[in-house]
Amino acid sequence: MLETRVVIYLSNRHIHVSREDLDVLFGKGHVLTKTKDLIQPGQFACAEHVTIEGPGGSLHEVRILGPERGETQCEVLASDTFTLGLPGCPVRESGHLEGSFPFTIVGPAATLRKSRGLIVAKRHIHFDLESAPRYGVQDGEIVQLRVPGERGAILENVVCRVLQNYALECHLDFDEGNAVGIRNHAFGELIKA
Amino acid sequence: MLETRVVIYLSNRHIHVSREDLDVLFGKGHVLTKTKDLIQPGQFACAEHVTIEGPGGSLHEVRILGPERGETQCEVLASDTFTLGLPGCPVRESGHLEGSFPFTIVGPAATLRKSRGLIVAKRHIHFDLESAPRYGVQDGEIVQLRVPGERGAILENVVCRVLQNYALECHLDFDEGNAVGIRNHAFGELIKA
Repeated sequence: MLETRVVIYLSNRHIHVSREDLDVLFGKGHVLTKTKDLIQPGQFACAEHVTIEGPGGSLHEVRILGPERGETQCEVLASDTFTLGLPGCPVRESGHLEGSFPFTIVGPAATLRKSRGLIVAKRHIHFDLESAPRYGVQDGEIVQLRVPGERGAILENVVCRVLQNYALECHLDFDEGNAVGIRNHAFGELIKA
Repeated sequence: MLETRVVIYLSNRHIHVSREDLDVLFGKGHVLTKTKDLIQPGQFACAEHVTIEGPGGSLHEVRILGPERGETQCEVLASDTFTLGLPGCPVRESGHLEGSFPFTIVGPAATLRKSRGLIVAKRHIHFDLESAPRYGVQDGEIVQLRVPGERGAILENVVCRVLQNYALECHLDFDEGNAVGIRNHAFGELIKA
């Protein structure tokens, strides 16, 4: 009997920055200040935040999540894309930045124009290598997630990501959490397509 | 063969006001200024807006929808309930205000404290008397609505409301629209439970 119950965490808009961009935005050699470990091993929230600008408006106090990444990537809510004046910003898996939208980052040391890296995060579930077989899923597999409740829904196109150093959890964003009426640490049921 | 295709309109936060409260908020005898007819016959957007206050914050420029109603009712987004400091605000059908939350309305003439009337709108589909049999639904019936697309979902607990002077359309709110990646005038598929 396969397991189906998955814990859900809700992500707000946030940004991952490269070493090079951190130097530009916060000054050469700046070291990120960890304020909280996240569920995923090695990932952490930082004290540092930036402003994200688009042609229609700005998002203030967008949190940096560490550690530094190979390429800067900002994950906004679908609702934010209207604030920024960037409707149509693509829904993407983390790190899949081909065709992602250009945007501007305002840090304390400088303003940086990026030619790509703005995405709306695709619904996903992290699995470690031991958990994936218990749920019967493989890396890259698309499943559904049923969220029970008064605003219950079956969310489609949820991608499973399996990696050694992941911890088992589903990531939805604030728009999705509000639409289905849940808070952090709610549970959903994985449904195989 | 029953029909299943339903057009979807997305609602932002808004307020319906009683004649009595309109007198208090805008001055005795104030007449609402229609700016746009809505799809539902007789319903219209107004030039007038108010500020809604909760213990944690305020929502500015909340649009009044006309005509006047028997009892004042403010429909906010689930995301707004955190801005207002009123998490747990109940999900309700329009007009079902038992147990709804208290809130404060700031108008140009006065500030009005309401003991109830704040709700998050329950997903619903309006049917006129001729359309309902074509979809095989009755007033009060709970159905699902499948929204296709990259952020596709099957939304549960969608209530069917059947009335002579309704026009066929599904109402979701901005949180729900963003979560499933649609704009106004998208189409969903009604699924009978």
